[in-house]
This record gives sequence, C-alpha cells and structure tokens, in this order.
Amino acid sequence: MDDLEGGMGSPSGRKFTASNLTTMNPIARAVVSMNKNVLAGVVLTFFLGLLFVGSKSNPTVVGVLLVSGGMLAFAGWVAQWVMARDEGTPDMSDVSDAIRDGAEGYFSTQYGTIGRLSLVLAVAIYLIYSFRQVTQEQMDAGLTQGTIALLTTVSFLFGAFCSAVAGYVGMWVSVRANMRVAGAARRSAREALVVALRAGGFSGLVVVGMTVIGVCSLFAIFHVSYGSSHENFTMSDIPLLLVGYGFGASFVALFAQLGGGIYTKAADVGADLVGKVEQNIPEDDPRNPAVVADLVGDNVGDCAARGADLFESIAAEIISAMILGGSMAKKSGLKDATGFIMFPLVIHTMDLVVSAAGLMSVSPSKVGTRQEDPYDVMKRGYTFSVVLAILGFTASCKLLLDSEEAPGAWLNFAGCGVVGIGCAYAFVFISQYYTDYKYKPVRVVAEASTTGHGTNIIAGVALGMESTALPVIVISMGITAAYHLGNTSGLKDAEGNPTAGLFGTAVATMGMLSTAAYVLTMDVFGPIADNAGGIVEMSQQPESVRDITDSLDAVGNTTKATTKGFAIGSAALAAFLLFSAYMDEVSAFTQKPFTEVDISIPEVWIGGLLGSMLVYLFSAWACAAVGKSAQEVVLEVRRQFLERPGIMNYTEKPDYARCVSIVAESALREMIKPGLLAVSAPVVVGVTFRMYGKATGEEMLGAKVVAGLLMFATVSGILLALFLNTAGGAWDNAKKYIEQGAYGGKNSEAHKASVTGDTVGDPFKDTAGPSLHVLIKMLATITLVMAPLFLD
Amino acid sequence: MDDLEGGMGSPSGRKFTASNLTTMNPIARAVVSMNKNVLAGVVLTFFLGLLFVGSKSNPTVVGVLLVSGGMLAFAGWVAQWVMARDEGTPDMSDVSDAIRDGAEGYFSTQYGTIGRLSLVLAVAIYLIYSFRQVTQEQMDAGLTQGTIALLTTVSFLFGAFCSAVAGYVGMWVSVRANMRVAGAARRSAREALVVALRAGGFSGLVVVGMTVIGVCSLFAIFHVSYGSSHENFTMSDIPLLLVGYGFGASFVALFAQLGGGIYTKAADVGADLVGKVEQNIPEDDPRNPAVVADLVGDNVGDCAARGADLFESIAAEIISAMILGGSMAKKSGLKDATGFIMFPLVIHTMDLVVSAAGLMSVSPSKVGTRQEDPYDVMKRGYTFSVVLAILGFTASCKLLLDSEEAPGAWLNFAGCGVVGIGCAYAFVFISQYYTDYKYKPVRVVAEASTTGHGTNIIAGVALGMESTALPVIVISMGITAAYHLGNTSGLKDAEGNPTAGLFGTAVATMGMLSTAAYVLTMDVFGPIADNAGGIVEMSQQPESVRDITDSLDAVGNTTKATTKGFAIGSAALAAFLLFSAYMDEVSAFTQKPFTEVDISIPEVWIGGLLGSMLVYLFSAWACAAVGKSAQEVVLEVRRQFLERPGIMNYTEKPDYARCVSIVAESALREMIKPGLLAVSAPVVVGVTFRMYGKATGEEMLGAKVVAGLLMFATVSGILLALFLNTAGGAWDNAKKYIEQGAYGGKNSEAHKASVTGDTVGDPFKDTAGPSLHVLIKMLATITLVMAPLFLD
Repeated sequence: MDDLEGGMGSPSGRKFTASNLTTMNPIARAVVSMNKNVLAGVVLTFFLGLLFVGSKSNPTVVGVLLVSGGMLAFAGWVAQWVMARDEGTPDMSDVSDAIRDGAEGYFSTQYGTIGRLSLVLAVAIYLIYSFRQVTQEQMDAGLTQGTIALLTTVSFLFGAFCSAVAGYVGMWVSVRANMRVAGAARRSAREALVVALRAGGFSGLVVVGMTVIGVCSLFAIFHVSYGSSHENFTMSDIPLLLVGYGFGASFVALFAQLGGGIYTKAADVGADLVGKVEQNIPEDDPRNPAVVADLVGDNVGDCAARGADLFESIAAEIISAMILGGSMAKKSGLKDATGFIMFPLVIHTMDLVVSAAGLMSVSPSKVGTRQEDPYDVMKRGYTFSVVLAILGFTASCKLLLDSEEAPGAWLNFAGCGVVGIGCAYAFVFISQYYTDYKYKPVRVVAEASTTGHGTNIIAGVALGMESTALPVIVISMGITAAYHLGNTSGLKDAEGNPTAGLFGTAVATMGMLSTAAYVLTMDVFGPIADNAGGIVEMSQQPESVRDITDSLDAVGNTTKATTKGFAIGSAALAAFLLFSAYMDEVSAFTQKPFTEVDISIPEVWIGGLLGSMLVYLFSAWACAAVGKSAQEVVLEVRRQFLERPGIMNYTEKPDYARCVSIVAESALREMIKPGLLAVSAPVVVGVTFRMYGKATGEEMLGAKVVAGLLMFATVSGILLALFLNTAGGAWDNAKKYIEQGAYGGKNSEAHKASVTGDTVGDPFKDTAGPSLHVLIKMLATITLVMAPLFLD
Repeated sequence: MDDLEGGMGSPSGRKFTASNLTTMNPIARAVVSMNKNVLAGVVLTFFLGLLFVGSKSNPTVVGVLLVSGGMLAFAGWVAQWVMARDEGTPDMSDVSDAIRDGAEGYFSTQYGTIGRLSLVLAVAIYLIYSFRQVTQEQMDAGLTQGTIALLTTVSFLFGAFCSAVAGYVGMWVSVRANMRVAGAARRSAREALVVALRAGGFSGLVVVGMTVIGVCSLFAIFHVSYGSSHENFTMSDIPLLLVGYGFGASFVALFAQLGGGIYTKAADVGADLVGKVEQNIPEDDPRNPAVVADLVGDNVGDCAARGADLFESIAAEIISAMILGGSMAKKSGLKDATGFIMFPLVIHTMDLVVSAAGLMSVSPSKVGTRQEDPYDVMKRGYTFSVVLAILGFTASCKLLLDSEEAPGAWLNFAGCGVVGIGCAYAFVFISQYYTDYKYKPVRVVAEASTTGHGTNIIAGVALGMESTALPVIVISMGITAAYHLGNTSGLKDAEGNPTAGLFGTAVATMGMLSTAAYVLTMDVFGPIADNAGGIVEMSQQPESVRDITDSLDAVGNTTKATTKGFAIGSAALAAFLLFSAYMDEVSAFTQKPFTEVDISIPEVWIGGLLGSMLVYLFSAWACAAVGKSAQEVVLEVRRQFLERPGIMNYTEKPDYARCVSIVAESALREMIKPGLLAVSAPVVVGVTFRMYGKATGEEMLGAKVVAGLLMFATVSGILLALFLNTAGGAWDNAKKYIEQGAYGGKNSEAHKASVTGDTVGDPFKDTAGPSLHVLIKMLATITLVMAPLFLD
C-alpha cells in the first residue's frame, strides 16, 4: 500500500499530500504548536486587559465583553465534548486524516495568498488616507490624517485577521468532528446528530463571539485612547473609524468564499461527472480518485468559507448599525447616544446566549422511542432560540433604546425586531418550499427529468427565477414595515421630521440576525454530516450506518439551502444601512448634504447599469472557474481509470493526492480574477466618474455614480443569488427524489438527466451564489473605505 | 396517403389542420378575400385623404407621408418580385402549404385572443381617463376629459391594430418565400440568398413604413382636428396624446412575442429531444411527427413576433423622442419646435430609403465567380446602408435641428447620431464574437461538451453572463457621450442651464435605429432560410441543395443573434427617453416638479427591487411555459413512434397535425400568465404605494415607486436578456461547430452534450430573451398610459 502515492492511511502518502500543499505561514504554525496552557494564559491576560480598557469606556462594554467571553469559554467546553467522542474505526480515522491534511494544507496556502493580498491593500489604504482631507468633525475631534490612516489600516488588518481565524475555526472543528459523527452513527442516529450539531455549534458560537469581541474591543480601545485626550471626541465618532474592520472582514471573506467555493465544487463536479455518470459508481465511492478532494472541499468551501461569510455579515451589520444609531441619536438631539450605539453589540451578545440555549436543548439522549426526523429536532432547537430571542430583544430595546425624548419608541423598535425575526422565519420556509422534495416545485423538476437533460435544466432555471418572487415580497414588506415603525417611534429632529426610519430597518436587520449563531450551527452541520457520510462510505460500513449518515446529509442539504436564504435576506436588509452609512460618510467628508441618489441623472443610472453588470460578470467568472477546474479533474480521473484498470475491482488504489493538488492549484489560480474584479470595479468606476465630473463641472459625480453602482449591484446581487442558490438546491434534491425511487429511480434515464441538473447546480449554489452574498457586502464596505478616492 | 390524418399534400389533411386551428376573425377574412384592385383603391383613397390632412398640418408631414408611401409601394414591388420566383417542386409546395396552414391558423387564433384582451384593456383605459383630472396645459389647450379619454383609447386600439398588421405581414411573406428560397436553392446559392433577403426586406420596409405612416397620420389628424379649433393648442401638446399608440403596439407585441416564442420553442425542443437525442434522426427529418410544428414555429415566432417587436420599438422610440423634442424646444425657448418634433419621423423615412438601397445593392446575379460567404454579402449591404444613413442623418440634422438660438447645435446632434450608429456597429460585432464559432467563447463551450452535459451548461451560462459586460460598457459610453454632446450643443433654458442632454441621447437612439429596416430584413432572413432548409430536408432534395440552405441557415442564426443585440441596445438607449417622458407626464398632471428618482427613499428602492424581481418572474414563467409545452410534444412524439413503428422506415406517415394543434393550444394557454403579470404588476405596485403614501402622508409616492420599478426593471431586463440571448446563441453554434466535425462530430458524446445545451438555449434565446425586450418597452409605455392611476 505504501508504494501508492497518497494512499489513505499511509503516513508517507499523507506527508506527500501535506508537503505538496502546506506552506503554513509561520504565525499560524507558532500558534498551533504552542502549549495549550500557555495559549490559555496569553488569551486570558489579553482578555483581562480588554476588560480593563472597557471599564474605562462604559459599563455596557464590560458587560458585552464578560458575557461573550463566557460564551466563548462555553464554546470551548462544547468543543471538548465533541473531541471526547470516539474517533470511530481505524479505517474512519485514516480517511479523516487524509481529509484533514488536504483541508489544512489548502487552507494555509489559500490564506497565505489572501494574506499577501491584504498586506498590499493595507498599504494602499494607508496611502489613500494619508493624502486626503480629514472631515470637519474629525478635525474638531482632534484626529489628524496620520491618525486616521493608521486607525483605518489597523482596523482593516485586524478585521482580516479575525476573519481568517473565524474561517480556520470552522474548518478546524469540521475536519475533527466528521469521523466522530461517523463513529457515533455506528451506535445511534440521535448521537450522530448531536455530535454534528454541537460541532457546528462550536463554530457558530466562536464566529459570532469573535465578531462581538473584535468590534467591541476596537471600539473600547479607540474610545479610551482618543476620548480622554480630545475633549470634542464623542462616542458617535467611533463607529465610522471601524469601517476598516468591516472591509478587512469582507475582503478576506470574498477570497475565502471564492477559493473555497471553487475548490469544493470543482472536486464535486469532477468526481460526479466521471464517477456517477461515466463509471456508474455511487457518490463517495473509495474507487473514485477525486473522492478525497471532494470531501476536503466540504471543509474548505462550506465550513471555512461560510464561517468567514457570516463573520463579515455580522461585523458589517454591527458597524453600520452603530454608525446609524450614533448619527440618528445626534440628529434627534438625544442626550445620551450610548444605548443606540451599543445596541448591536448587546443584541449579538444575547444571540450567543439564546443560541447556546437552543443548542443545548437538543440533548444527546433521545426521549421516547419514536424515530424523529433530524430536521424536526434541529428546528425545535431553532424555535426555542427564536422564542428566547424575542424576549431578549424586547428587553434589550427597553433597556437601551428607551429615551426620555421619545418614551414609547422602544416598543416600536421591539416591533421592528419582531418584523426582522418574522422575515427570517419566512425566508427559511420559502427556501424549504422551493428546495425540499416534499413540495411541488422540486417534483416538477424531477418530472421534467423524464423528458431529458434539457428539460430538466429548463425546469430548474425556471424554478430558480420564480423563487425570487416571494423573498423579494417579504423583504419589501419587512423594510416598509420597519421603516414605518421607526418613523412613527416619536424620535424627531429639531424641525420635527421623523429621524428613526432607517434605524428601524437597522433594528429589523438585527432582529433577523438575532439567532445568527444557531443558524450558523445548522449550516456547518451540513458539511460535517456530508463528510461523515463520505467517511462511512469510504470505510465501507454496513448499510444501517450509511442510512443514518444519509439521512443527516439530506437534512444538511436543506439547512444549507435555508441558511443561504437567511444570508441573502440579511444582506438585503443590511444593504440599506450600508447605503446610508456611505451617504453619511460622503456628507461628512464634503461638508455638503448628500441625501439622495437620483437615478434620473444619466451617469448615476449608468453607474447602476455597471453595478448590475459587475454582478453578472463576477458570477460568470466564478462559474467558469468551477467549470475549468472541474474539467481538469475529469481528465485526471479518466486518466487514472484508464491507466489503472484495477481501480474498479479494488485491486489498485487510486491516487487521491494528485486530485487534491490539481484542485487546490486550480482553485487558487481561478479565485484571483473574480476577486480582483470585485475589489477594483467600484474603485475604477468611482475614480473615472470623479474625473469626468471634474471635467464637465458636475459636482460629487464620482460619489453619486458609486452610490448608483452600489444600490443596483445590491438588487441584482440579491436576485441572482436567490436564483442561483435555489435552482442549485432544487436540482440537488430533484436528483435525491429520483434516487429514492421516483421516475425509475437510480440508473434510469431520468436519473441521468437529474445528475446533469445537480452538476450544473453545484457551482450555482456553492460557488457563485454564496460568493454573491459576500460581494454585496464587500461592495458596501469597500465604498465606505474608499470614499475619499471618489471625492475632489 | 389520404387516410393519414394531416399528411402533407393531402387536401383533407390540410383542411383538418386549418379547421382545428383557424377561427379566422371576420375582418381579417374580409380583407384577405377582397379583390386586389378594390383593396388597392381603398388604400389609395385613404392615403390621399391622409395627404390632404397632412397638408393642413405642415409640409414635413406631407413629405414624410409621400416618401414612406412611395417606399411602401416599392416594398410591394419587392413582394411581387419574390412571388414571381418559382415555387420549387410539388413536394416542396406540399410541405410549404402545410406550414402555411399551421402558421395562419395559429396566427388568427392567437390574434383573436390578443384582440379580445386589447378590447378589455381599451375599455379600462377609457374609464381611467374619463375619471381623472386633465392637466393644466391640456385645459389651456381646450382638451376635455372626454376628448383625451377618446383620443388615448383610439390611439391604443390603432396601435394594437397596426402591430397586428405588422406581425401578419412578417408571417405572410415568410410562409410564401420559404418554398421559393428552397426552389432557388436548386439553382444557385446566390439566388436563394437574394430571394430570402428580399422577402425579409419586404417585411422590414412594411413594418418601418407602417410605423412612420401610423404615427405621422395620427399626429396630423390630432393636429388638424384640435389645432384649428383651440388657439392655445400647439404642436408640442400632441406627442403626449400618442402614448396610447405606443402602448397598444407594445401590448400586442408582448403577447405576440410570448405566444409565438412559446410556440416555436416548444415545437423545436420537443422535436429535438425525441428526434435527435432519442431516435438519432437528423433535424427536420420528415419522420419526426413534430417537424411541421417546428417549421410553423419559425414563422409565428421569429417572423410575426419579431415584426411586432420592432414595430413597437420604433413606435415607442419615435413617440418618446417627439415628446422629448417638444418639451426640450419649449424649455429652450425656441421659436419653432416643428423640426425637433418631426425629426424622428424624418429619420425613419430616411431609414426606409437607405435600407431599400442597401437591399437592392445585393443583386441576384453574382459578380465574379468566387463563392462568397452569404454573411459577408449581407453585411456589405448593411455597411452600404449605414454609410448612406450617416450622410442622411447629418443632412437631416442640418435641415431640422438648426436653430437661430443655437447655431452649431445641429453638428452636436449629428455627432450623437454617429455615436448611436457606432454603438449599433459595436453591438453587432460583440454579439458575433460571443455567438459565432469562429471565435473563442463558443469554442470553449464546445470543448466543455467533451466532459459532459453538465460542463456544457456551466460553460454556456458563464459565457452568457460574461457577455453582458461589453455591451453594457458600450451603452454606458454611448449614453454618456450623447448626453454630453447634447448638453454642450448650446441649447439653454432661461436660466442658462443646458437643456438638450436627454435629447442628445434621443438622437443617438435614432442613430442606432436609423437602419432599422435593413436590420429587420436580416433578422427575418433567418427564419425564412431556416424554413427553406426544413422544406429541402423534408422533400428529400439532393445533398448539394441541402448544403446551400444549410449555409444560409447558419448565417441566419448569426443575423438573428446580432439583431437581438441591436434590439437590446436600442431598448437600453430608448429607456432613458421613456423615463423622462414619464417624469414629464407626471409633472404635467400634478403641476409639481418631478425631476428626480431618489432611490435612497426606501419605498423607491423597494419599487426597484420589485421591478427587478418582475423581470425574473416573467422570464421564469416564459421558460417554464416552453418546458411544459415541450414535454407535451415529447410525450406525443414518443407515443407516435411507439404506436406507429413504420414511421422509422418510411412505411407509415407521422401525424403532423396533431403535434401542430398540441403546440398551438399549449402556447395559447401558457402565454396568458406571464403576459398578465407584466401588464398588471406595475399597476398593482403603483396603486398600492399610492394608497400607502396617502396613509403615511408621503407625496406622489405611487409615481415615484413606479419610476423606481421602471428603471430597475430596465437594467435587470437588459442584463437578463443579454445573458439569455447570448447563452442561447452560443449553445446553438457550439452544437453546429461539433456537428462540423470538432470533438468527434455528430453522434459523439460531446455532440449529445451540445444538443442539451442547444435545447436549454432555445427558450432562452427565442422566448424569454426577446420577450424581455418587449417587456422593457411595454413597462415604459404602460406606466406612461396608466400614470393617472398612481396619482391622487
């Protein structure tokens, strides 16, 4: 066995895999190799320092830090609980080890590239901010160009670093939990479910906890450093300094999602096209040379990338809501803005607590004897979290948003929160309706498979495009309702105009994200279950074990689809906060009102057209990247089957490592083009129209055109992402429905057609679609950070 | 043979086909059965009456009427020339007769349905306008509610009628030219090319000529009827009264394009899925029971529907440019607005002349002996037209747009025209680059076919999404340049602000459309060549004849793709005119300035989100309609092959008529849902937000939200249409490339995968994509007509 390259279980093989890929950066290596107790000591000291700084800022900061610190400790306990499960059979560990090596190797290479890109960008940001004017308010607050350049750059790098850690944690737990879930599946379905769920829970708690602590500590440090020395510096000045953090997070998330998404789907598509379609072997069959690459992909694509994605969602949302809360409190003439600024941090601290409660409500020992649908079990935990979140949300509104100036306002804001939570619930249901084969839409796609590959694709495309309607209607009603509730809250400016409309939508967004940690838990559950299934299949476990992991995997598909709906919904709601933060910022820089984006100005409309086009071009390149990489995998897998005829009858071992390294190289190469497009397009458009505006005498043209670009790109991005995600999920489940016996079952012509749909859906739902969520938010944060470039 | 239902050449069979479908409406029957000389007499009298009315309006009207009347007479000569060609072999006539019966039967049933829908809408329009306020200007001009209601309703019905005639003419010539092209192909490639081109030319000239005469005569009649009796009534008041005409045209075009598009692609997809994929018989093989339905589809879908589409494009563009010219002249304080108002009519009169010249420059007798690429021949004619158009355009600018107030302005406008023509040229080239297999993109799709159905689809989707980039950049540069040229033309309002920016984009749009008749010629050429190929195949002509029609068919695919690019480009440019016409109209109604569409107002942005969603939902339903109808065809064709095993060895005849009637019924049923969605969505959104705005005290909210809807829907529509059209064209040609021997040629696995791509592309490029062009313009005209509903 040892003479086969990269055979699983062969230490030399593993080493080969790793050495091929791992160029682990020195910091990561130092952290990983540190003694556990030393590490704990360093973290604790650091945390105590933070608490000290926080205590000089305000008591809410201390409370937030203490509770989220506690919840991180709890997450550590959850991780230990998961790690204490048995590792399954030696066969299972072998497979899992191969997966872990591949995933960690790819992870460090990928983040090495991303790290270098981030450093280049950090220099650019520093230079941009060093050469631009500071705003009047900043001058008043005593901040100089140099200070702001430094703060923004440091925030950016810190955001990028935290995002990388969030991604790493997601992957770290999943590559360790997969074999433990497989091991547990040998005993009971319930145990396997709980192991996978808690592993996901660890990831969810850490990601949300880190966002909260990251933003909170930056806030406290800035507050304490500048608040004491500059008398005009108020708390409302801080959030705008944090945008760099949000941009750092989204910059890293974009490349992580692209690289991971391309990796996972190139491997998956490549494995399926030859394995399932040409050779007629089942999914995750150990004879398929690309199977390990496929399983590695689940970890680097779904776990790591989704962790980074949600990290930046929450970071961007917290920061923009803080900006909005601060400026709204100022406009409304409130004496104390603290509650409004701290509100997002408190909500996500509560999020940690209620999600942990939901997680623990699913106990490992099943009560009663009935075999329950795992989805129902998980959903019960979710409902439990949601009920707690409503209570906690209302209490937080009363505590933080109740002001003397508008006594009943907190009730309106609590209403906004309920609107947001309601939208989240509706999104989950709509996604399920369009992607679960219990309902009509997926069955229509399955039926269309009976008339061929072509009709299957047409039906899926039609379903995907149709599925945009209900979410858009829900978002529309949600924004309208929240805006109205905010406007009628009683908060008014000096002239008596209502001021809290936008803050109402901000509160709704927070409501929607108020159980984010649990949602992320369900999401990470998916790839862990998928991996466990792969390990069970590859280590050739008995049918009963496979049944258990299969059922978990199917549920994972549904939760993955629903959390994507959730991610888009929150992106859509958050979009509005980010727009207005951008407009506030431009106003601050130019000292001129910038309160409208008039698309009847041709250039602004053109900005919109270009923004929408950007979304298409970006998706095109993401899909093409998967297609190209998958073709390389197909050729390699075909070559192996041809040159090693013994693979099919188990007398020869396939060369897994070669597929792993082909996919890794290809994904790293292909993520650059769409990533750079996304980062450079808004800058190029803004600068071009700034110069054009200067030449033609149109004031602030660059900033206006970028606003148009941002808003249209958001709308197009939401729609295209909804289309891509839902179509992909529906094709996947239409295939599963047929595999369960409908229309001739496995190996029928209908099944072949449905596999084509599934293949097409892969890059849609796991590469282009999720990358678009990140793109939408990245565009918003990059325009915030780069705004000075668009202004004369 | 006679005992087989619907066999071609069997009179009883033909009768069966027709009686199944034809419920020809009495007016059409009366017109068709009229004596030719009587008809000519009626038309002539009518025309002389028009000239008399025109002479009382202004001399330009007379000139326009005379020249376009003359060009219609010339078109009649072209038709006679085509009809004088021989009808080919009796076999060919038999096939052609079956096609004609099917097409005419479907046409009259479809237009019967559309006619009834139009009548319902006409009543609604009359009621809406009867109960609303007239504008201050209209009151000043002496127009009452009743008059305006009547004028708008009559314009609507007249527009709808003219559109139906345009569609009918397109189909009439193509079902007669197809066999004549097939006949000519027995002799020479050049002759076949010229017959097909001139048949297309007839269609192009009639459609453009009818638009010009229709708008011009309505203009003259309104002018003369009200201008003499009301002293305050000026020429600038007229164009706004014509919007009903544009809406009538686009309403009919929408249903014609949907119904025709669904018909043609359901038949095509159904025929291919069983014929090519399952039974391995070639395209248009007489053994395929769906082959006649497929050929009928080319006529009702491509010819009739595209005729109606371009008719409404030009009508909407002329009317909105007239509105804009009038209001701009007024704002700029010009003494005489006539030139600015009449300009669009003059340009399209010139369009008729230069297109005819281009058409005749392709002579039937080939000079030299070299076998030329038919595309080059046609393109030469196009280039000839374009050169003439540039000259004519410049001359028209000098004659009509040269005013004392701004002496050099005409030169700027001529520049705008050149910008428009340049954009058109760029569009043609870009479409060709992305859809012609001479270039890399299509070859990438072909290569992706070698790794399976899935990678073929992914590559095509990626190509389609990428192909949106260059056209959007061209449009952006075009609009910016034209707007700038307009703004710097020297035309200014009383305060010295430039007024002609938007008119500059209007002139660019006219430049783009200044060879519309020739473009439509090339477009209609496509389905005629396609049909001729089908007839040649079905009547089993020798290889050499097939080669000729095959080469024409391939060129037809390219011209069809390029004219679609052209249609989107003009829709994008025209969008701006229609926006501003809408804003002008709302201002006029409310007597309040409505000069901006601010998408930072949440409701307006939501309008945009809903508008973009509308585009997706509409496309979904259009694609699903094709999928559903095609599935019915597949089941029927499979049934026939099963129940009549003799079909495959030519001992039994398939039942063509049954397929024809299944497709017809299905298409008529399925066109209703997307059509009504498109018509009702803007009205529902506008009225809902009008009421919401009333409740919350936000002024003009309904009108603003509709403006947001319109602008976002336009952008999303442009992008989605570009994606759908290009992806579809590329898949089609990737298949053709493989059929020519690449990657294993016909019957290879790569070929099968490429057929799947072609199947998916069919509804994309011939149903959803073209329907979106119409939708964009229909939304603009419906908001213009329904504006009173959105206002308090």
